[in-house]
Amino acid sequence: MTLLQSWVTSANHPDCPFPLNNLPYGVFSIADDEPRCGVAIGDMILDLRACERAGLLDLGGAALFDQPHWNKLMAEGYRVWNDLRGRLLKLLDALSTAQGELERLMVAHSSATLHLPFEVAEYTDFYAGRHHATNVGTMFRGAENALPPNWLHMPIGYNGRASSVVLSGTDIRRPWGQLKGPNDSKPRFAPSARFDFELELGAIVGVDSDVPVGVDRADQMIFGYVLLNDWSARDIQAWEYQPLGPFQAKATATSVSPWIVTKAALEPFRCATPAREFPLLAHLRDTTPMLYDIDLTVQLAPEDRSATTIARTNYREMYYSSAQQLAHHSSSGCPMRTGDLLGSGTISGAEKNQRGALLELSWGGAEPIALDSGESRSFLEDGDSVVLTGAAHGDGYTIGFGDCTGSILAAVDHPYRA
Amino acid sequence: MTLLQSWVTSANHPDCPFPLNNLPYGVFSIADDEPRCGVAIGDMILDLRACERAGLLDLGGAALFDQPHWNKLMAEGYRVWNDLRGRLLKLLDALSTAQGELERLMVAHSSATLHLPFEVAEYTDFYAGRHHATNVGTMFRGAENALPPNWLHMPIGYNGRASSVVLSGTDIRRPWGQLKGPNDSKPRFAPSARFDFELELGAIVGVDSDVPVGVDRADQMIFGYVLLNDWSARDIQAWEYQPLGPFQAKATATSVSPWIVTKAALEPFRCATPAREFPLLAHLRDTTPMLYDIDLTVQLAPEDRSATTIARTNYREMYYSSAQQLAHHSSSGCPMRTGDLLGSGTISGAEKNQRGALLELSWGGAEPIALDSGESRSFLEDGDSVVLTGAAHGDGYTIGFGDCTGSILAAVDHPYRA
Repeated sequence: MTLLQSWVTSANHPDCPFPLNNLPYGVFSIADDEPRCGVAIGDMILDLRACERAGLLDLGGAALFDQPHWNKLMAEGYRVWNDLRGRLLKLLDALSTAQGELERLMVAHSSATLHLPFEVAEYTDFYAGRHHATNVGTMFRGAENALPPNWLHMPIGYNGRASSVVLSGTDIRRPWGQLKGPNDSKPRFAPSARFDFELELGAIVGVDSDVPVGVDRADQMIFGYVLLNDWSARDIQAWEYQPLGPFQAKATATSVSPWIVTKAALEPFRCATPAREFPLLAHLRDTTPMLYDIDLTVQLAPEDRSATTIARTNYREMYYSSAQQLAHHSSSGCPMRTGDLLGSGTISGAEKNQRGALLELSWGGAEPIALDSGESRSFLEDGDSVVLTGAAHGDGYTIGFGDCTGSILAAVDHPYRA
Repeated sequence: MTLLQSWVTSANHPDCPFPLNNLPYGVFSIADDEPRCGVAIGDMILDLRACERAGLLDLGGAALFDQPHWNKLMAEGYRVWNDLRGRLLKLLDALSTAQGELERLMVAHSSATLHLPFEVAEYTDFYAGRHHATNVGTMFRGAENALPPNWLHMPIGYNGRASSVVLSGTDIRRPWGQLKGPNDSKPRFAPSARFDFELELGAIVGVDSDVPVGVDRADQMIFGYVLLNDWSARDIQAWEYQPLGPFQAKATATSVSPWIVTKAALEPFRCATPAREFPLLAHLRDTTPMLYDIDLTVQLAPEDRSATTIARTNYREMYYSSAQQLAHHSSSGCPMRTGDLLGSGTISGAEKNQRGALLELSWGGAEPIALDSGESRSFLEDGDSVVLTGAAHGDGYTIGFGDCTGSILAAVDHPYRA
């Protein structure tokens, strides 16, 4: 696969994140008009509601794109997904005869307001990166007990809170929480002092299933991927998480990038999961490569200062794919729904500068990291901005994810409404 | 408060679960007609859609009851909740002048099909009964470490799976799961052999909040209560739950009773939480009695055999109220939504026959319980039916919850779709 040429000339550049090869799906509005579905191409957005109304994109369903989210299209299933992509590839191709008609249905990125591209049904977060699990386990339980006994046999996950999922760019308010340090005699209610990010990829489930599914069917059910920042209050987590897992530590917010990058766009970048330490049970075994080669970075910028790239890693570092996670998720008969969001778990590489959370980068605060601004960080400070980026690099083209950003606001003075 | 007299004479009996004092809210349909909102009175259901259309119940909103759930009414807030109850009390009172008009808008329970009365936004399950937590902790960690250190300071909870919530009466399919006993060298994928129920009360959040709330505001946000059975696969749970809590063990199904019993109906039965071992932090401290005196029973019937009452307990046994749970849930800034369902946690009393799960009743299978049919049970067997009942007993009247039932179907032969 090489760079596909589009009549939208800004898309025809090896570094453009949104070439014809990509075609990621988002939701946008202009001024006071209603949010609707669009596809990014170069520095433009094609208004799919307008295409549908103009009769250029009839997929057999009524008003699939006159929606403030992609859920209605997703629920149509993978044949319609493929049909849509095929039509868009033709319409936007350099040789398309529809250019004249379509030019009027284009909107500049710079004049559009982006919205959350899908309605989150439920949100599940996993713990499926081996380097991350080993690092965190070593800090919490010592090197010899780093990985829990079940970890190499199943993708460990927990249910998160869909209501907390926000679009990239939303400011994140530092949470209050119940805290108790190891030397405190009793807990107190105070703003989190160990607030952190987590670099993840989010998989979006496109279609329902009321029965357990194997890995191949699970892969088929996934519509696409976004970057995901699972904001985490480490001090709240440390006190609350035994015995039923993280709860308020993860409930303040989870940010996602604005463009859904489809499985089809990522197809050339499939790669295998790492060698298995133990053979997996049949329903979790991957039959084809189900990870993707996606370069990821984390940048941190103190308020009014320049950003430092504090981590570089790759999605292929995961031990379990999203398809394996979805297969496990459904295994008890748990009904899965259009719009379910599965966080990959923190993506860390083997090296110190490849770690996807400050908890690991600063080793629990013991080794603060240096920023280019001259400051250092153990955990996030008020005014800090975190930017996650992701890109798959093809032969002369790039499949970009829109950035996933968020800035930390100071905790409020009055922590709750009486 | 004594029994209020209604012109629906079947309601005027001290043992009737649905007297005028109760007025619980459900969703029903007749034959092929659409599900809509209704209120139970005696052996009848008043069709609120029909009342609204006839101009008998104008609450200022459009089509609040021509809905397959109560969410639209709930979102209107507690002033409208009170307004509705006030109007229903008048319309159904023995002295009502509307009897003639209303009689035509009544449907017999026996001819109606009931539906899930609310759309579950998200589902959270707590672990807030001290006897239950102590029993389970003793089995898992020994008597000296039974209660985790945080337990007396906050209502421990975890996010569950809204998609798994089903109406009472839905059959429950025994799940498959990854299992590994303490003496097994490796895990296997097999039907759960330790499938269990949990007796709980579910609190339904009526209105949104994007900010943390204190206990008084939290109490005001709760619309009503249902009985809840949090079906639990103990063998899946034992292997999966470290370190991030229960996941697939709790995802097969959660059953709820069909009628939402309102906070107003339960008002005369408020009672205080037990004495605190440690003072709670201010945002979790109860200012008024926030538990309720509700008698609860669990009956178990093997297939084609009579039922045995295997547990009797009371909701006042809880250490934390639903209002305290909701306050804690929102404390990190977690947005709460109309339709959020909060499971109380298993309700067990101090005595052996007051325990709300087979795990406790059979002490992890070590002490099977005897049934009247001559059989015994450690965990649920295929064909078993479990019936949860609940009632608050007033001076000559009863506030009943509709039963919460479910029967166990055998596991399927083919555990997943390829």
